[in-house]
Amino acid sequence: MHRFYVPDLPTSGVVALPDGEARHLARVLRLRAGDVVAVFDGKGREVTARVETIGSRNVSIDLLEPRIPAAEPAIPVTFAQALLKSDKMDRVIGDAVMLGATAIQPFLTRRTDVPAAAVRSGVRQERWVRSVVASVKQCGRAVVPPVLETQPFAGVLDLAATQRLIFVEPGAATIASVTDVTQLASQRPREAMVMIGPEGGWDPEELRQGVAAGATLVTLGSRVLRADAAGAAALAVLRYMWRDL
Amino acid sequence: MHRFYVPDLPTSGVVALPDGEARHLARVLRLRAGDVVAVFDGKGREVTARVETIGSRNVSIDLLEPRIPAAEPAIPVTFAQALLKSDKMDRVIGDAVMLGATAIQPFLTRRTDVPAAAVRSGVRQERWVRSVVASVKQCGRAVVPPVLETQPFAGVLDLAATQRLIFVEPGAATIASVTDVTQLASQRPREAMVMIGPEGGWDPEELRQGVAAGATLVTLGSRVLRADAAGAAALAVLRYMWRDL
Repeated sequence: MHRFYVPDLPTSGVVALPDGEARHLARVLRLRAGDVVAVFDGKGREVTARVETIGSRNVSIDLLEPRIPAAEPAIPVTFAQALLKSDKMDRVIGDAVMLGATAIQPFLTRRTDVPAAAVRSGVRQERWVRSVVASVKQCGRAVVPPVLETQPFAGVLDLAATQRLIFVEPGAATIASVTDVTQLASQRPREAMVMIGPEGGWDPEELRQGVAAGATLVTLGSRVLRADAAGAAALAVLRYMWRDL
Repeated sequence: MHRFYVPDLPTSGVVALPDGEARHLARVLRLRAGDVVAVFDGKGREVTARVETIGSRNVSIDLLEPRIPAAEPAIPVTFAQALLKSDKMDRVIGDAVMLGATAIQPFLTRRTDVPAAAVRSGVRQERWVRSVVASVKQCGRAVVPPVLETQPFAGVLDLAATQRLIFVEPGAATIASVTDVTQLASQRPREAMVMIGPEGGWDPEELRQGVAAGATLVTLGSRVLRADAAGAAALAVLRYMWRDL
């Protein structure tokens, strides 16, 4: 069933879809009056609705009954990703949402190869929110995880989380003490933060900073994973390990 | 250390790099005589080497000593992916190699949205092999997994493997009996085949065919994963589950 995002969703009655959603329903999906769709409020509530009218500029729908969205994970995970080039970052954020990230935290590192000006403009932030919403729609969640403001690495380290995991390449063991992901299986944290480095890798000084701040350096197997693929693999493994996939 | 692929690698002596590798070393990475690199033969052997001469058309290297590449997985997994649009397919294949796929099997399904002519031409096959080699270089493996010839779905089902897993969306349970991935934890197969469907999803008839052929339908959590992200998540979880990451 096609799903639409309506942040201010009343409990019942006839509702106008937001502009972008109305256009998508009418022009891309070419739905018609009478078709049944699902709408969610981004905070966990989802209902079925019947398309009432499709005008040149707006679409109204009649709310029907509650619908059960995909389950939210039991363990909240903030997914922190060092900035990647824009198409990769969009995709990585979408992947993280599918794998149950409950917040997205972009951050900057020494080897981040993305102009800070592009970040400050706010254009990126808007793109990332769109990636989050697109992924929420596709994966069946009814909660839209927030995209937090881009921070320097040290700022992210300061965030509170019962378990802060910095994923590193197998070779990082020469710099600091690392934990194989299998060793984390005995701890099921109340909440966690997963940090994935940039394409150029972590600077050794950052790893030492992370350890000093109480974070755990984690390796995910014996092969080097690409920066834009490591996050999804890490989240999938952690969710499986915590029986929270 | 930069790694180069030399399929016919002698045990010692001075060797000319294949054309593409020579260009990459000289023009992209701009290495110089005296630099030390690693070369692997794609069958598991890797050695260090010193750059001897860099000419306008060729590069020769002097083989030094054996080097230990990233470990090959204990459980061979054929990664079978229904064809995706070309850039997605390239990336998915690269991801599978990083996560220890030991063979790549592209296949066609009823809802595959890729022209068969593009497949027959062989151009795709060459691209996929390049994706495999690029990923092998990056992830530290010294084995280049083969890209098998594209098959129809039924042909893939005929391939022998002790465990054949067809990954399906959570909703597939209405069509056939599905197994949550956690239920597979007790079995550590001798070898496995992982099958991921196309962007349009599996046709119900294909799922019934799969079950009839003895394959297991597996769900990976409660959210719907994109076709180009499901494979990496599935491989990561299985490798973790088998203690073979």
